[in-house]
Formats: sequence, C-alpha cells, structure tokens
Amino acid sequence: MNTKAYAAPSATENLAPFAFDRRTVGAKDVQIEIEYCGVCHSDIHIARNEWGGSVYPVVPGHEIIGRVAKVGEGVAGFKAGDLVGVGCLVDSCHHCPACEDDLEQYCEGGMVFTYGSPDPVMGGMTYGGYSEKIVVDEQFVLHVSEKLDTKAVAPLLCAGITTYSPLRQWQVKAGDKVGIIGLGGLGHMGVKLAAAMGAHVVMITTSPEKGADAKRLGAHEVLVSRDEAQMAAHANSFDFLLNTIPVAHDVNPYIDLMKRDTTMVIVGALALLPDVNGVGLIMKRKRIAGSLIGGIRETQEMLDFCAEHNIVSDVEMIDIQDINDAYDRVVKADVKYRFVIDMKTLKD
Amino acid sequence: MNTKAYAAPSATENLAPFAFDRRTVGAKDVQIEIEYCGVCHSDIHIARNEWGGSVYPVVPGHEIIGRVAKVGEGVAGFKAGDLVGVGCLVDSCHHCPACEDDLEQYCEGGMVFTYGSPDPVMGGMTYGGYSEKIVVDEQFVLHVSEKLDTKAVAPLLCAGITTYSPLRQWQVKAGDKVGIIGLGGLGHMGVKLAAAMGAHVVMITTSPEKGADAKRLGAHEVLVSRDEAQMAAHANSFDFLLNTIPVAHDVNPYIDLMKRDTTMVIVGALALLPDVNGVGLIMKRKRIAGSLIGGIRETQEMLDFCAEHNIVSDVEMIDIQDINDAYDRVVKADVKYRFVIDMKTLKD
Repeated sequence: MNTKAYAAPSATENLAPFAFDRRTVGAKDVQIEIEYCGVCHSDIHIARNEWGGSVYPVVPGHEIIGRVAKVGEGVAGFKAGDLVGVGCLVDSCHHCPACEDDLEQYCEGGMVFTYGSPDPVMGGMTYGGYSEKIVVDEQFVLHVSEKLDTKAVAPLLCAGITTYSPLRQWQVKAGDKVGIIGLGGLGHMGVKLAAAMGAHVVMITTSPEKGADAKRLGAHEVLVSRDEAQMAAHANSFDFLLNTIPVAHDVNPYIDLMKRDTTMVIVGALALLPDVNGVGLIMKRKRIAGSLIGGIRETQEMLDFCAEHNIVSDVEMIDIQDINDAYDRVVKADVKYRFVIDMKTLKD
Repeated sequence: MNTKAYAAPSATENLAPFAFDRRTVGAKDVQIEIEYCGVCHSDIHIARNEWGGSVYPVVPGHEIIGRVAKVGEGVAGFKAGDLVGVGCLVDSCHHCPACEDDLEQYCEGGMVFTYGSPDPVMGGMTYGGYSEKIVVDEQFVLHVSEKLDTKAVAPLLCAGITTYSPLRQWQVKAGDKVGIIGLGGLGHMGVKLAAAMGAHVVMITTSPEKGADAKRLGAHEVLVSRDEAQMAAHANSFDFLLNTIPVAHDVNPYIDLMKRDTTMVIVGALALLPDVNGVGLIMKRKRIAGSLIGGIRETQEMLDFCAEHNIVSDVEMIDIQDINDAYDRVVKADVKYRFVIDMKTLKD
C-alpha cells in the first residue's frame, strides 16, 4: 500500500505515475473503458486532503460513464459494448441490515468508495474514474440508456442520485412546493428532478442573478434568501426543502420557510451547522435530516427516471490536462454546473 | 387589558390582586373547581418574563385537575362532579389544517394558551390554573380517570403529553431501544411512558447518581453521557431518542448514538443548539425533529393510556404560599420530579 503523502500535491502530480490496469477481470467483474468522468467537489477535498486521511496517490472520480470492454465468466447482466456507469461505490459487505435494505451507502461492514477506500480485492486503495479503465463487481455497475447525451449523464452518478434519493425518501409528489437551496452541481440536478416529479419548484439562492438560469432549468419561482420580505412571504409554506449548500451556514431562515411536519434534508454541508434554533423545530414539529448519495438499486432507478424524463446534467467539457484549473473554478463556484472530463484526452 | 409590567415581580405579587371568577359559564363552557395544579418550568419563564412579552398580572398554571362545578346548557360531554383536566390549551381557531388534524397546538389561526394568551372570550389575557376556578370550552376539557392518584395526574397535562406525543408520532414500539435524555419533569414521564409502550428504555444522563432512581421509574439501563467509553459502546444503536434537556446543549454526542434512519426529538430546548454536525446527520440519514405538547384528542388518549397502565407523575406537594421557593428549586432542578400545588391552600 502506497501511503506516501505529498506535501501539497496538485491533482496532476497525483495522477501522473500510476498504472491503472492493475485489476484482472474476476468471474463477477466488469471491465469498463471509461469515456467520461464528472468532477465532484469531493474529488478536490480528497485530492487536496482537505478532509484529512487521504492516501496518495489519489485517483479521484466517481461519476464514471464508459463501455464494457470485458466481463468475467460469471457476469450475467452485462456484455461487451454496453453503455454503463459507476458511481460513488464499488463494493460493500452485502449482508448487513443496510445492504439487505439496498442501502449500500450506509453499509455497516464498510462500504468501498470508488476511490480512496481500502481496496478489498487488490489491497492498497481504490482508484477512481480519472482513468482509462476500471474493473468493478457487476453488482456495482449501472445500466445507462443510449438515448441521452452520454457525457452529460456522468454527473447523475453522484449529483443526480444525491438529490434524487431524498426527494424519493421523503415522497415528494406532484403539486408539492419544494425548495432547492443553492444552485450548483447538486442544486441544478435537484431543480430538474423535482420538476420532473411534478413539484412546484422554488430555487432558493443568495444570488438574484441566478434566477433566470434557475427558471431555464425548470424552477417555477426564485426566492432570494437575502431578501427578508421575500422570505417572510414564503414563511411556513414549503412541503420539502433540499439543502445543497456545501459549507457551514445558518439553517434557521430555511426552517422558517417550512410547513408543519415537513423536512429539510441536508446533502451538502459536511460541516457544523451553527446555532440551530430549537424553537423553529419544536413550534411546528419540523425536521432536519441528512442524506448520503443513494444505494445501487435506487441509482439504477434514478438513471431510468432520467432516461424517461430526458434529464441530464448541464456540463462543461474539459481535457484531463485542465483539471487543476477546473478544480480552482469549482472552488469559486464558476461552472454551470458540472465539469466532465473527456477521458480520451488522457492518451494525448 | 392590564398591561402593567412589574419590574421584577415575584409570583405571589402577580397572583395577589386578581379576581379569578370573571368568566361566566357560556353554553359550551365547563366551570371547574381546581383541586391541583402542577408547576411547569414555563410557569417560571413567563412569571419572570424570561421569554419576553409577559403581560402582568400573570396567573400561571397549565397542569390543572379539578371537578366540574357547572356546565353550560349546550355541554354534552361533562356534568357536575366529573373529574377533569385542562392542559396547555383552552381554545384554537377550529378550522385551519392543524385544527382539522386534531393538532390544535399548531393552530395556524392562533391557539389560545391556558395562561398568558390574548383571551378571545373575555378580552385581556387568559389566566391559568393557580386559581380556585377556571371556565373552559368543553372541547378543551379532558376526562380524568378516578382510579389514579388525582394529585399526581396533574403533571400529565403538560409533562405527560409532551413526552407521549413524540413517542407516538415516531411509532415507538415494543422492543425498540429508546433513549430518554435528561431526568427531570419531562424525562421522568418519558421513562415511564416508553417503558409502558414496551420499549427497552435507556436513561441518558450526565449524573451517574440519578441511575438508581431512573431504574425505579422503569429504565432498563442507564447511560452516563459524560462517560465516553459508555457512549461509544452504545454508538449507532438507538431506535429513537427523546431529548428533554431544557437548555442549549451539544446534540452531537446523542446523534452518534442513533441508528440509521432514526429520529431524535427535541422537546425541551427552546434554545439555539450550537454546531449541529451535518456529517452526523448525512452519514446515516439521521433526523432531528421538534415536538410541542400534543392536541386535545391525543391528550385524552394519553390520559386513558396512563389510567390503563397506572402511570402518574412523581410529585412533591406544596401550598400556594410556597410557590416562590418551589420556583427557585425548579430552577436548581431540585425536585423529584414535579411540584403540584394543593389549590385548597389558596383559601388559607
């Protein structure tokens, strides 16, 4: 296991020296030639060791689209040439209560993330989708429809499922007034998915200038969270809030927007939420909950839902050589709304 | 409306000058001769204007037990001599979605609290149970079983329903591992009620010396929250947490105790909860919710449940003349577990 940690490595330094074809194709494995890989903010956190615990070299990437190159002799669900996806998970224990509930993302035996997890098959750490190929157990490979714009499907594997799963868990339905808080990679998928579910979608943003784009994406209304009068006019009116803000922030103005007995789901803020007002929760029996990506079964359901409703991510294509600039732009929220790497540029 | 605010009034000063027999018995009204009234911490907050907005004189008291003295000609459900209770509410709008759902405590038209609310019938403010009599619309009067120790029933009207309602809302059932956080007026009722529902009850307290008493009340285990090893041993194991801590506090150690997809309900902390860890919520899809007392239908259900299971509060009886000392002892958490005023002492 290579545990050498670079002092302040760039993503390119970490990518450069590695061979990506190390895992032979086992009986239940699918080997995928990667065509596209989305750039998620977590890629940056882990490449830059911002969460601590990164083991270098890191090969990021968990929004993977490609075609099956080879399958093991025991693989039943895939054949060479199939268009497939791999998301944030490549393995789990298969027998804990979470796995039995098709919620591998909460595996109690230890889920294996697509990159940066101890690799139970090969030893060392798992390597992700900024790569030519990946070999994955077929249970963690997703079918992808040929009818969508393939490169724009990649971000569905993380941004799509992260927003789809809580909308389903909390049973958002036609006519519900749903607020999507924050318009970035996650938020723009939240708007598209909630609108496709028939909800009345309100984009809640600090930035009035994002309004027009939010409506283009499918939002029916825009609510500027810095405008106290607008916020007061929407008080106690939302059936559901999906909070995609990726950093610590004051959640109380959003709690005030919620109807009695409704939920705000936090999907972005892996952070301390300061001073959550107990009064806001108690007085109308409101709830704050968390949600982490989604299980494999639900990820397939989300991909099928997107194919049916013609939903993809808004993407900006980059070459792998531009990854460090792309990272800097993601940090500045300067992307509409997801970078996707064209993986054939890895051979340039 | 008397809005004269005393500088730093004692409860007795506020009680002294008032006539309590001002409301005539309307067609739908029940006049109750009050026998006992429990002392809730909110009585102190409002008597001392600690939440702001108190309108003096204040007559506190919303854990009221008494006998019907007189009923209006349109009253069908009560007759003179009946043993009855009045809790935190004496009226609501009757037609909003909350009222239609039997959740008058969340009335959108404005619920009328038993004391300190604008009084829609008499004008001025409502006056509570530290009194000889009270006149209440029959829809807000509860039937009380004769089989229980009457004076110990009083605290069920607030402490009982506040803990019963979330246990029912979140469907606590036999065999669930339920943690009751904090052993005071609310917590001791939470232990008794959750145990009667068949749960495996764990008293979670900062004070190891409360352990024996918690077990006497019905707890199966005691978990000392300051003991990190004990807390770690219970990590991710609870099906439900009822958090009765009445002040701001760090909720993150409790979040760590919860299983995936479970809820901690805050019933006491009308306060800012500092630095709630989003990671704790996201990683196992956990939830923090609030809950406020209960509706009238559910309060009756709770009283019937307590009669069936022989549940009352642990009380310490006081004379009304001792109310200020009792307040000071409540503030110091020096009561096991609820003071109840013997209202005949008001005539002494």
